[in-house]
Amino acid sequence: MPTDSRGLLIVYTGEGKGKTTAALGLVMRALGQGQQVCVLQFIKSESGRWGETRLAERLGIAWETLGRGFVFDPAHQAEDAALAHKGWERARERIASGAYDLVVLDEFTYPLHFAWVDTAEVVDWLAHERPSSVSVVITGRNAPPELIEAADLVTEMVKIKHPYDAGIKAQPGIEY
Amino acid sequence: MPTDSRGLLIVYTGEGKGKTTAALGLVMRALGQGQQVCVLQFIKSESGRWGETRLAERLGIAWETLGRGFVFDPAHQAEDAALAHKGWERARERIASGAYDLVVLDEFTYPLHFAWVDTAEVVDWLAHERPSSVSVVITGRNAPPELIEAADLVTEMVKIKHPYDAGIKAQPGIEY
Repeated sequence: MPTDSRGLLIVYTGEGKGKTTAALGLVMRALGQGQQVCVLQFIKSESGRWGETRLAERLGIAWETLGRGFVFDPAHQAEDAALAHKGWERARERIASGAYDLVVLDEFTYPLHFAWVDTAEVVDWLAHERPSSVSVVITGRNAPPELIEAADLVTEMVKIKHPYDAGIKAQPGIEY
Repeated sequence: MPTDSRGLLIVYTGEGKGKTTAALGLVMRALGQGQQVCVLQFIKSESGRWGETRLAERLGIAWETLGRGFVFDPAHQAEDAALAHKGWERARERIASGAYDLVVLDEFTYPLHFAWVDTAEVVDWLAHERPSSVSVVITGRNAPPELIEAADLVTEMVKIKHPYDAGIKAQPGIEY
């Protein structure tokens, strides 16, 4: 029997394109339903002027970038781990506030995968401390098995073909 | 060597959730970049008050529903085929107009899969008649191999876990 209205834990993972993009689509749907949305980006830095952040400003979405860019550099592990911890603290605040129907934790699988944030703690918190009406979307490659186990909806984006392979550079409006 | 700015042919296919959703994310990105966007939905009917269509109205996106709903009914094959033909004609108009940077053909794989519209003709038209600056996104299960062959970017959404499996009904803001 279908249960009543409730928040879902959604994971978009895999090597293919479309993970963050699908999360953005959920943001659009939620906005269309008059819901409140918060997006926290764990890896992307503030300096990136992504198409989506520009629209987010226009639409009044709460949008925060918590990382320092894309590159994983062993020399910056401690810094990245500290940022990730701060980011997860921020995520808990935002989710627990009850102010949002949908909270996107973009590329949050990386801090989990690199064990900067403890997956068991995250899964436990989401199960017991998350208000039941709040949907949480987590994106990124290498989603830990415990997270997949805990999620309600998991899609793996599998790369069949990528324009980089054909020497086509990233296009504005498509990849950023 | 990366080539200059150009429109891409993008396909989101597979059994998993996130195909239409990812297309919506591209819509959001394109809007954020100040681009013009058109969405044509081949299966969904006008009566559906989806979250995304409500937001589309607010954002001034050109959005058309061309189908009569979700159900595939052998008794309505002729009607569905006629609608699909009309839809593809409309899509060509919209793409060729040059008025849009991004045109989404949502669930267009179904008319191709059911051979209501000829895949070879579509692939040929997109390759030779599409203005080179226009990106086209096609979503839906069972994307024909010829379409995948012709596309620049193809992601297969693989279902790992779906909330229906656990008896959780479709949630507003997430699935519609």
